[in-house]
Amino acid sequence: MERNRRIQLIVSYDGTQYCGWQIQENGMTIEGQLNLYLSALLKENIRVAGVSRTDAGVHALCNIAIFDTKASIPADRVCRALNQKLPPDIRIVQSKEVPLDYHPRYQKSIKTYQYKIENSSTQTPIHRLYSYFYFIPLDIELMKEAIPYFIGEYDFESFCNIRTKVESTVRTITDLTLEKEGNLITITVSGNGFLYNMVRIIVGTLIQVGRGKIRPEEIVTIIEAKNRKLAGPTVPAEGLFLYNYQFL
Amino acid sequence: MERNRRIQLIVSYDGTQYCGWQIQENGMTIEGQLNLYLSALLKENIRVAGVSRTDAGVHALCNIAIFDTKASIPADRVCRALNQKLPPDIRIVQSKEVPLDYHPRYQKSIKTYQYKIENSSTQTPIHRLYSYFYFIPLDIELMKEAIPYFIGEYDFESFCNIRTKVESTVRTITDLTLEKEGNLITITVSGNGFLYNMVRIIVGTLIQVGRGKIRPEEIVTIIEAKNRKLAGPTVPAEGLFLYNYQFL
Repeated sequence: MERNRRIQLIVSYDGTQYCGWQIQENGMTIEGQLNLYLSALLKENIRVAGVSRTDAGVHALCNIAIFDTKASIPADRVCRALNQKLPPDIRIVQSKEVPLDYHPRYQKSIKTYQYKIENSSTQTPIHRLYSYFYFIPLDIELMKEAIPYFIGEYDFESFCNIRTKVESTVRTITDLTLEKEGNLITITVSGNGFLYNMVRIIVGTLIQVGRGKIRPEEIVTIIEAKNRKLAGPTVPAEGLFLYNYQFL
Repeated sequence: MERNRRIQLIVSYDGTQYCGWQIQENGMTIEGQLNLYLSALLKENIRVAGVSRTDAGVHALCNIAIFDTKASIPADRVCRALNQKLPPDIRIVQSKEVPLDYHPRYQKSIKTYQYKIENSSTQTPIHRLYSYFYFIPLDIELMKEAIPYFIGEYDFESFCNIRTKVESTVRTITDLTLEKEGNLITITVSGNGFLYNMVRIIVGTLIQVGRGKIRPEEIVTIIEAKNRKLAGPTVPAEGLFLYNYQFL
């Protein structure tokens, strides 16, 4: 009898054309594409399980998924074989066999997201798919002053859009940096987990700081209030990248 | 009677969807789009004249164009009015009035191009539209050794694809740099003018150096030979950006 095996994929994608990771009836998703092309490749009904269910329009350099198969293909060959079939906006960076009881979703990890803002009077066409265009000038130094208030273990309820099903809203941000190069601002945030839309609300709040609407030290009050209404708006998906996973 | 005025535009575009700058009967071009939207905006038959006729698929951060009009719209308003109509892959960065006898094509300038190569085993989807994916590992140090041989005034006939209509193939490269960040190699080249496909052939030649197929010091021989066959291949358009203009 064929033995079941578990294969783990590192998946990189341009989220522009997709309704996010999670499979849905109406609309193309990353999970749906992987199921489709893996099933065709392995001639078996394959169902992947992803670690991060990124939203519509969000990009990823390294989302992680596993699937079980009875196929005998060497695990490392799945990567190239699948890349030859997949559309160019999805690529498998690595494929390897893992133990059958291994699930990366339940491993402790530090996840890193990047968010890119183009802050200029006119949007640059070559940046339009991979950054949020914001034309009101932002004070970078003020934004940098706000950063330390986010780092640490806090109840981030003020930075979460939907509370259903989430048991605790306590998370730890291990690192948060902001860099500007030309007109492009890059915000990089790492933590042990993120609430729904948390990164995009943190960035929306930093933008309000950069506009002088929220003072840097007010971040403390906003976190303590546990009130979504006090934080800034949720910035759009196109500027967000799932950037790195580090398993602990 | 209405007075004729000349307006200069700085134009930024994502070349992915276009058959290049120059207007043609079959296929969408940057020049064609500008003529179309400017004519609609100013209710007049407008014909722009561009400085660099970039090839199909090549991107630009700052191509320059002029047009003449009898319209009374303030020159600096053309920028915003046109951006509201243009598709998002073309943007006007600046519009200003210039003397009627001024043509930027005949001004002495230093033009800068960038070329991006993603050198990795798997193409990253978010880089696929704006870099050339090259999976054979390149020796960056060797490529850097070749750079000094290109800088200066030379007859670059070996680095030109079509000789027709070009009177002299002597050009001056004022600067050439190569940087690597992660898997992305950025080559930046400045000069007083470039022959047809010259930047893409220089990059193709540097790639041969990075593969060990051409020794760095052989660049001297290749330039002296004035023979296109000795230089490397012409690399694809998607990695090329018209990056900067500096008028002297």
